[in-house]
Amino acid sequence: MKLLKKSINLFFASSILFAGSVTAQGNPAQMRSVNFSKVQISDKFWSPRIQTVTSVTIPVCIEQTEVITPRIRNFEKVARKQGEKHEGIYYDDSDVYKALEAIAYSLKNHPDAKLEAKADEWIDKIAAAQLPDGYLNTYYTLTGLDKRWTDMEKHEDYNAGHLIEAAVAYYNTTGKRKLLDVAIRVADNIDSTFRLANRNWVSGHEEIELALVKLYKATGKQKYLDLADWYLQQRGHGYGKGAIWTNKEMGEKYCQDDVPVKDQTQIEGHAVRAMYLYTGAADVGAAKHDPGYLKSMRTVWEDVVFRNMYITGGIGSSGSNEGFSTDYDLPNKNAYCETCASVGMVLWNERMNLLTGNAQYVDVLEKSLYNGALDGLSLSGDTFFYGNPLASDEDNQRSKWFGTACCPSNIARLVESLGNYIYASSDQAIWVNLFVSSSTSIPLKKATVQIRQESNYPWEGVIRLTVDPSSKIAFPLHIRIPGWANNEPAPGSTYQFTDRVDSTVSLSLNGKPVKYTLKDGYAIVNGQWKKGDVVTLTLPMPVRMVKATDSIKMNRNKIALQRGPLMYCVERFGKDQEQSFVIPEQVAFNTSFDKELLNGVVVLKAEVPFLMPADNGKSIKTEQGTLTAIPYYSWANRGHSQMDVWLPTRISSIDVKASKDDK
Amino acid sequence: MKLLKKSINLFFASSILFAGSVTAQGNPAQMRSVNFSKVQISDKFWSPRIQTVTSVTIPVCIEQTEVITPRIRNFEKVARKQGEKHEGIYYDDSDVYKALEAIAYSLKNHPDAKLEAKADEWIDKIAAAQLPDGYLNTYYTLTGLDKRWTDMEKHEDYNAGHLIEAAVAYYNTTGKRKLLDVAIRVADNIDSTFRLANRNWVSGHEEIELALVKLYKATGKQKYLDLADWYLQQRGHGYGKGAIWTNKEMGEKYCQDDVPVKDQTQIEGHAVRAMYLYTGAADVGAAKHDPGYLKSMRTVWEDVVFRNMYITGGIGSSGSNEGFSTDYDLPNKNAYCETCASVGMVLWNERMNLLTGNAQYVDVLEKSLYNGALDGLSLSGDTFFYGNPLASDEDNQRSKWFGTACCPSNIARLVESLGNYIYASSDQAIWVNLFVSSSTSIPLKKATVQIRQESNYPWEGVIRLTVDPSSKIAFPLHIRIPGWANNEPAPGSTYQFTDRVDSTVSLSLNGKPVKYTLKDGYAIVNGQWKKGDVVTLTLPMPVRMVKATDSIKMNRNKIALQRGPLMYCVERFGKDQEQSFVIPEQVAFNTSFDKELLNGVVVLKAEVPFLMPADNGKSIKTEQGTLTAIPYYSWANRGHSQMDVWLPTRISSIDVKASKDDK
Repeated sequence: MKLLKKSINLFFASSILFAGSVTAQGNPAQMRSVNFSKVQISDKFWSPRIQTVTSVTIPVCIEQTEVITPRIRNFEKVARKQGEKHEGIYYDDSDVYKALEAIAYSLKNHPDAKLEAKADEWIDKIAAAQLPDGYLNTYYTLTGLDKRWTDMEKHEDYNAGHLIEAAVAYYNTTGKRKLLDVAIRVADNIDSTFRLANRNWVSGHEEIELALVKLYKATGKQKYLDLADWYLQQRGHGYGKGAIWTNKEMGEKYCQDDVPVKDQTQIEGHAVRAMYLYTGAADVGAAKHDPGYLKSMRTVWEDVVFRNMYITGGIGSSGSNEGFSTDYDLPNKNAYCETCASVGMVLWNERMNLLTGNAQYVDVLEKSLYNGALDGLSLSGDTFFYGNPLASDEDNQRSKWFGTACCPSNIARLVESLGNYIYASSDQAIWVNLFVSSSTSIPLKKATVQIRQESNYPWEGVIRLTVDPSSKIAFPLHIRIPGWANNEPAPGSTYQFTDRVDSTVSLSLNGKPVKYTLKDGYAIVNGQWKKGDVVTLTLPMPVRMVKATDSIKMNRNKIALQRGPLMYCVERFGKDQEQSFVIPEQVAFNTSFDKELLNGVVVLKAEVPFLMPADNGKSIKTEQGTLTAIPYYSWANRGHSQMDVWLPTRISSIDVKASKDDK
Repeated sequence: MKLLKKSINLFFASSILFAGSVTAQGNPAQMRSVNFSKVQISDKFWSPRIQTVTSVTIPVCIEQTEVITPRIRNFEKVARKQGEKHEGIYYDDSDVYKALEAIAYSLKNHPDAKLEAKADEWIDKIAAAQLPDGYLNTYYTLTGLDKRWTDMEKHEDYNAGHLIEAAVAYYNTTGKRKLLDVAIRVADNIDSTFRLANRNWVSGHEEIELALVKLYKATGKQKYLDLADWYLQQRGHGYGKGAIWTNKEMGEKYCQDDVPVKDQTQIEGHAVRAMYLYTGAADVGAAKHDPGYLKSMRTVWEDVVFRNMYITGGIGSSGSNEGFSTDYDLPNKNAYCETCASVGMVLWNERMNLLTGNAQYVDVLEKSLYNGALDGLSLSGDTFFYGNPLASDEDNQRSKWFGTACCPSNIARLVESLGNYIYASSDQAIWVNLFVSSSTSIPLKKATVQIRQESNYPWEGVIRLTVDPSSKIAFPLHIRIPGWANNEPAPGSTYQFTDRVDSTVSLSLNGKPVKYTLKDGYAIVNGQWKKGDVVTLTLPMPVRMVKATDSIKMNRNKIALQRGPLMYCVERFGKDQEQSFVIPEQVAFNTSFDKELLNGVVVLKAEVPFLMPADNGKSIKTEQGTLTAIPYYSWANRGHSQMDVWLPTRISSIDVKASKDDK
């Protein structure tokens, strides 16, 4: 098992200074992400998507939350105090908060007085539902306060966590404190109920840990960081024994409560809970300079990425526990790959990147973002996948909403806050992590550095970075060189390209090759920067075939198609594509941008043998035809169809279908 | 749509007197089933199965109920009154009662002092958990009695119904009244809480209706029949509005509460609930001579059997609501077909037969019994199917137990009480419904008639009936002529044999052709019976190919194999069978009894073309090979394998599998 990201091999090797691998103690550079509010995105790929979330997805979330389902009504009922019944599920409050968080980001991207008034109206209703002692939870307030904090699975602190995240986001966008003050009282109430009272408690669904770190950063109050750390430290000591999840097949593993967080080495249980836990652990580890969390999170990350991650960056293969089964058990059709888990992968990998300074985490972040997460949202923005399988028998379609509706607002808040993941900086340096056309302004030493990024990524690999310092300044500019650009479709040996190609990554400054260091997945250009300097990165964008490690039995005799960060898939539309096919060993895919198709995508085409029934319906003939592959994120936007990410290169057996409706 | 069973066409037509179709008012003959306790079974097919249930399945149910799961412990906790927590689900009490009912039947078949002592021990624990007012429910007694009878979905009367059934069964076997007295107090408590208090209430999961009719028959007390009728009449008036099930997609339909029972025309919602409702409605209709129930149950039955029943007699195609979707939506791989629903089909069709005197109901009963229900139990008796699909991708195996464990004890009590379904009688006549080697003694007029039945059914079609009256007596002996023996695989036109064959049904008395009438699916021999008379029925047992109506899209271009009452399926064991195949139009299946295979089964074999990968794995070749089919009930007893009941006659498309673990 290859544990560390390989050093990259460039054409002009003379310019490279190998700087060794990740340090054991994390990144001494103290990277901070550049907040999305400081980043103006003007990207052909992402800008229309952000606009769709603003104009379609968020209104859908509002209508579902307020009109179609009783989520807002529960808050109103609490305020009315007329003994009305709670409707829905005990974690429904969190959907209100996640929608508010998405609205907060959207208001930053696209100020909108009417939308802000709606948010204020919700916030008034939320505030009116808070009890004098700070407790805020419509389920227990309406069904019996005597039972509050008696069942660790009932998501009370999960709801509180999403409230805090929404409050911090809304405060950051609008400067309005009302929801933040509500959140502070909620956090204080929890703090006095548990940590300060020495009462043990394991949160059944992690989320509050990362939220409390945000509250700590927003308020500067150490106690919220301490409470986050306290939540982490409660796990793995048996305090959760007897909680509802111990009745389940997996016991404490289901909620990552069988082992203390710092001793955890393997991902287990419910995938979204795991992601939020790891994100919180990385946050607390960074804020408290605690190497124990970093150490365990590194080990767990390897377990996730090397043995339990789909090629789409999705995780959580098992629907029965919404989580993990055994290493390399990655079925395609039955893949669960919850949208929220891919959102969680983005969050966690961002933290791991900031904590270590290593770009391998951004490689995974990018993979999850462009594939596993983005797939959760339809192109039209109004329907959603809860699970994101890698193969389908025509039976998967996005839904308008879900009983458990965690995913829609989660993908909405992710897309609206995409700007968070593009740039990072420290007191000494700047990092470019994602290739999204955008500009930002970063204070550095005594100057301010404007960075403007232009590209047609992910369709094309040329990225133009204009560096505009307010005054001449020397600093290292770190530009991520994606693993896939150097023959590594995913960190580790889980997935490999079928052939190695000479890398054509190139980097120039003002049109001339530039000297740089390669370290931890970044090309580091140590320049004396002046106004108008242009760095051009050219990433190779050939169509690559990926093979999975033999341990993933489901993918034996199959390949997947990758181009840039995008995974591709085959839907069965069109005459030829209705039939089965086999990918020959030697096959050339050509690429073309089809602006009419699926809001504009690069399609991959190749001539391959198709297998189809002979005219008498009794035997199978082979005929050459054209196979078309589309980006994975864009499937299921044209109606029902069979879909496959992993494509057969060899037939081991066949299933005969006697009719179209054979099922 | 053919609504009435076709009259049967025999060779010796001269002997036939056509008696017309079913009467609108039901059966004036007042058939009663002969209780299983009066029937001694000595059958090569069934006796070993009953023995397995006694020696394996019932001990498994006891161990699961008492040791592995907390079902019995909940009763103990109630009795201890120490504020202990309820464990498990609110309907778990019912599993204790169903196991007790199975034990009661088993004790009749195989007296066993140790087992009876265990039952008495359980009964003591149950009795100790009854409250002074008669209420008995461990869930509410342990979680808060203030909430009892507030949620119609919480199965309080479902549990009570199974308690009553167990109590009546145990009393009938042992004569011990303790549990019966408990049940009487439970029923009286319910009666005073609702019917006598004029309080409306809809039972969320029907079951108590049929149970109360049993209590009425055991005690002779009219009020229990009235309460059963009251329960039926509560449905369909909106009294269930606001109950938990109105939150579900289907609203009141889910629990058959959208329309009054007598106005129901279609099956809908949850299959098991529907079956128990219909059984109860037929029971009350019979006991109260109320034609309203018969009328609606006839119409609903046609909807079930003509448009919503699998060829296995299974029902309830949809896993999401454990019930029904749209007419003819009968997917094979995704078939839910809960074992309990097939048990329910046996119960309901027995009642419909007794109510109408028509054998078409026994045709369906026999189909559900030998196929959909029996499939729920492994040959070893210690593992169970909850759902019984008609096709499988190797991923279905019987389980040792279930969280919701309704099926194991349900199939156990059905097999132990098989004797109930073999014979029926009235004051004037005797009916033979099932062909199971057995003997019984039926009081008729002033005589007692011994009937002895011998056959090797379902493997062979010769049934020998010895009639031994205590004195010479004239009475009509009704012998069921199965629909399948005359070209009708299921009532209605849902399923048809691909070719009609001349029927070779023959009936002889003491070796000579006998004159008889054919009416409502019965051959009626009006004899002057004397000791030692032997009636021999010979049913044709060719292998028949069945086609489904074109409306069942999933079965287009497919056939199923049937022989006698048994449906067959193909598992993919053996060299040839690992591959796909196509059934040619003209194909001859030969039959042979393999005593080593699956506890002894008749297998069907034919030479057919198999489709398999060419050696290079890139194309498909056709090779002739031997296809082997086994009885459907016996699949999944040799390990994991693909399985299909419906076999392709034509290829519409193929799915390529690249590896064995492709999924």
